[in-house]
Amino acid sequence: MDTRRLIKADGRKLILYARDRVDVRDEPSPSTAPFAPNAHLRWHPLRAEWVAYATHRQHRTFLPPADYNPLAPTTNPDHPTEVPSGRWDVAVFENLFPTLTRLAHDPPQLFVPTGPALGACEVVVFTQDPSASLGALPLWHIELVLDVWADRYERLGAREDVSYVFPFENRGVEVGVTLHHPHGQIYAYPFVPPVPARALLQQRLYYEQHGRGLVEALVADEAAASQRLVYAGPHAVAFMPVFARYSYEVWVAPRRGASSCAALSPEERRDFARALKTVLMKYDALWKRPFPYILALYQAPTDGGPHPEAHAHIELYPAFRMEGRLKYLAGSEIGAGVFTADTVPEDKVKELQGVAVDIDA
Amino acid sequence: MDTRRLIKADGRKLILYARDRVDVRDEPSPSTAPFAPNAHLRWHPLRAEWVAYATHRQHRTFLPPADYNPLAPTTNPDHPTEVPSGRWDVAVFENLFPTLTRLAHDPPQLFVPTGPALGACEVVVFTQDPSASLGALPLWHIELVLDVWADRYERLGAREDVSYVFPFENRGVEVGVTLHHPHGQIYAYPFVPPVPARALLQQRLYYEQHGRGLVEALVADEAAASQRLVYAGPHAVAFMPVFARYSYEVWVAPRRGASSCAALSPEERRDFARALKTVLMKYDALWKRPFPYILALYQAPTDGGPHPEAHAHIELYPAFRMEGRLKYLAGSEIGAGVFTADTVPEDKVKELQGVAVDIDA
Repeated sequence: MDTRRLIKADGRKLILYARDRVDVRDEPSPSTAPFAPNAHLRWHPLRAEWVAYATHRQHRTFLPPADYNPLAPTTNPDHPTEVPSGRWDVAVFENLFPTLTRLAHDPPQLFVPTGPALGACEVVVFTQDPSASLGALPLWHIELVLDVWADRYERLGAREDVSYVFPFENRGVEVGVTLHHPHGQIYAYPFVPPVPARALLQQRLYYEQHGRGLVEALVADEAAASQRLVYAGPHAVAFMPVFARYSYEVWVAPRRGASSCAALSPEERRDFARALKTVLMKYDALWKRPFPYILALYQAPTDGGPHPEAHAHIELYPAFRMEGRLKYLAGSEIGAGVFTADTVPEDKVKELQGVAVDIDA
Repeated sequence: MDTRRLIKADGRKLILYARDRVDVRDEPSPSTAPFAPNAHLRWHPLRAEWVAYATHRQHRTFLPPADYNPLAPTTNPDHPTEVPSGRWDVAVFENLFPTLTRLAHDPPQLFVPTGPALGACEVVVFTQDPSASLGALPLWHIELVLDVWADRYERLGAREDVSYVFPFENRGVEVGVTLHHPHGQIYAYPFVPPVPARALLQQRLYYEQHGRGLVEALVADEAAASQRLVYAGPHAVAFMPVFARYSYEVWVAPRRGASSCAALSPEERRDFARALKTVLMKYDALWKRPFPYILALYQAPTDGGPHPEAHAHIELYPAFRMEGRLKYLAGSEIGAGVFTADTVPEDKVKELQGVAVDIDA
């Protein structure tokens, strides 16, 4: 992997990755005003969690031409995009309107605790091709995305103001995406967020009790049961968990409890990429249309502590509960935190198992 | 308040409430087959929460006529609805396709803990008028809805299989509602669900430390700051909390820490109804269209323990973040549990404060 780390004219970072060699002539930016975002956190005392406010985001005055794609390589110098033309396979840059930023300062004083919304919000452009998708990329390219996630995990995680590096992808208008060029995001939080914090606590308790990872045990249980498997390779599996909350929820995990993408061996990473590609291709093949989902990659916190309990894995939350029917999170899910399903994973997984895909094509 | 408790032909409960007098001739049911639902719980070990599966829900074979409204009074005996014609103001009945049910039995044996999905799912028909809305009802009628919630809190809460009674309303197609007759739901859980459980823990810790309720303190702080108030009466307030997660999030709370609707004095209930009506009318007046939201009423658990820390209040989560723009919960909110906002409550509340409504009209 070749890497080039650049700074845009407005001060934002741009990092280009290629399997072979990065070769570009510039580091374009649609914005030239010095990058000076601000954002703050307020403490929600009943939920015991931080809420992030980035009010500068509403002042997006940039009015691009109709066919302007800020994530495609710049071809018209009058309308620079976020990424250059030239040779590269994956690009990462700082979001122009971040919710979390290393530049956060002077939070307001209120009657609840507040703080600067430190950290980072990065955009990960998966490919130069606007018509591709993460799952449609060749295996080597998905492996490269895993390498990029690993690099950002290590680089962002090393920062003082970052305790948790969270790569995710929101895909499809159904989950609010307006920009359809294949891309994900990385949020680097200055604290361990509530959802992974809760999961890590359970994993730690299990580890202390059993001397073994909770996800490792689940992976072994699902592999042994085999009923809900979507992929089973030598080093990685994909399965619809027995306690799936979403109708088409699938987890992708290495069999061994590696704590992050960076801790995967080359063989594990290759098999993990195969597992992920298999699931994403099945999703799109199921109804012969792009399948909307949230992809969440959970890894160990970068808060300085050891995390033997952590087991890097991806959870995929699809938006549909059946063809043409969205799953709405409403009273019970949002208000009470109790997911309700009309179907059981043992039935739903058959639909994915029944779709044939050729990931080596 | 007059109350009539009935049993439908299929065995489901139907309860009718009226300010003056209930007067009906029958207890109609679109279904006549004996009510025999089943549902089970599976334990999600990483989130440490139950997921509810009610597979019978997908077998809804009932094909009603196009203009059939199951929540309107029955007028055509060939197509009975869920509620009778006659005199009543609010109706409650057991959901034909419950996610939680007193009849749950024989959960599957899996490698995670499972259990019967005991409890109840009830529908609360707010009015006979299909074109009304909760906020548009006259004050006496909203007070009656609070009385109904209080009655169901006590009746359901007294059951052995119920630890938490949760009234809510999903309003609008934007939150997945397909049936637009004004109605809410009550889920009675066999455990304290994760969201109120977390909030109650924080309230208990605060109570132990300060000898005073956390919500009571927040209400006093918001009342003193006054900046984010939407309603301030002698016994109840409505405000956009300083840590609001949704752009138009509003809380409605009695000033005193009553533990449930049933614990409100008549004066408190009246003022609480005024506060709620004020907010709901402002919502609908803001863009002169029905405002979609999730309404959640949090009360003390009915798990047998004392709950001096609990302070009954309503939280409203609107679907829009600005006119015509939905707030999507995606990577950060769903995957990490961190809400991100483009606006601060101090700005957004001005929009609601600027709308004049006459709740006594």
